Amino acid sequence: MDLRPPTVRRLLEHLERLPGVGPRTAQRLAEHLLTVPPDDLEAFAESLRALNQTVTLCPECCLLTEEVPCAVCADPGRDRSLILVVEEPTTAWSVESTGEYHGLYHALLGHLSPLHGVGPDDLSIDRLEERCRSGDVAEVILATDPTVEGETTALYIARRLQPLEVSLSRPASGIPVGGEVATVDRVTLAQALQLRRTV
Amino acid sequence: MDLRPPTVRRLLEHLERLPGVGPRTAQRLAEHLLTVPPDDLEAFAESLRALNQTVTLCPECCLLTEEVPCAVCADPGRDRSLILVVEEPTTAWSVESTGEYHGLYHALLGHLSPLHGVGPDDLSIDRLEERCRSGDVAEVILATDPTVEGETTALYIARRLQPLEVSLSRPASGIPVGGEVATVDRVTLAQALQLRRTV
Repeated sequence: MDLRPPTVRRLLEHLERLPGVGPRTAQRLAEHLLTVPPDDLEAFAESLRALNQTVTLCPECCLLTEEVPCAVCADPGRDRSLILVVEEPTTAWSVESTGEYHGLYHALLGHLSPLHGVGPDDLSIDRLEERCRSGDVAEVILATDPTVEGETTALYIARRLQPLEVSLSRPASGIPVGGEVATVDRVTLAQALQLRRTV
Repeated sequence: MDLRPPTVRRLLEHLERLPGVGPRTAQRLAEHLLTVPPDDLEAFAESLRALNQTVTLCPECCLLTEEVPCAVCADPGRDRSLILVVEEPTTAWSVESTGEYHGLYHALLGHLSPLHGVGPDDLSIDRLEERCRSGDVAEVILATDPTVEGETTALYIARRLQPLEVSLSRPASGIPVGGEVATVDRVTLAQALQLRRTV
């Protein structure tokens, strides 16, 4: 006999689809959720539901937003000559949290991946090109991931934007701050040595 | 500037309250949830909300159920002379999944913990005693956890039920099946040796 009430079974199915959550973790989460006060549980459910209803992509830069245009695109204080390109909209959150970047963003909504059928038309590359053509943009920082797909995507975009008068850059790869030289992989270490700075 | 839309921030707060979920995991979960189709997300939210509305405790045995009495208590095929006592209702799911147990259950809804102000009246011990007095019960298996609190709780219940004509037992402690003798803690190993079986 399966003793789990149907509602709990349905919840477990949803929890098990989350990344990194197997049957055991799902059960632990469900056990916890069964102890959450009704109001909190209701608010949690509501915040999930609201994701669909209130969060959209900024038509300009493709960041996640509840207002159109997004807070960055609407902010007159941002440096409009600079666009930082990321694969996923959420990556911009991490960049912004450094407090070091004051330009605009552009989320590609993925990376080129011929094997998975993702070509240039599936990403927001046309939109990026259009923004660069507008004339205000002086530099595009290609902050796609330093992976095979990310590098390929950066290279493709670089070729597309070459005819326009924008300078292109890519963030440095190197030893993470607080990391150990001995434990850094050799490709990263080679890059870090190539990009070494005079002290 | 915090680029995360308010809805996403609210969702992150709820996710971070889940056991074992820190800010990074919460962000990974939120990123995934942002890609879930609207219908699935709605169903997920609904299953969360339904926990409050449809899941209750069986008044007889305190298992989680959507019907009163629960499926076990209502099943005429179960052995009514046997009650297996667990701390949490969800633990009964694991016991049931062995397929080896065909009696009734009783969830205490916790364990005795004077330090946290949990006394006998906070658990469903009175209810258990009542069930044992009913006369049908021949054996009570005290399957509280083999921890200090679990053992104390089992001992307390054993004393309470002593005057009644029920036999009391506790599941064996020993080397987990598939485990290694060398890696088992010494207390468990000592128990396993004491409870050794003739081959």
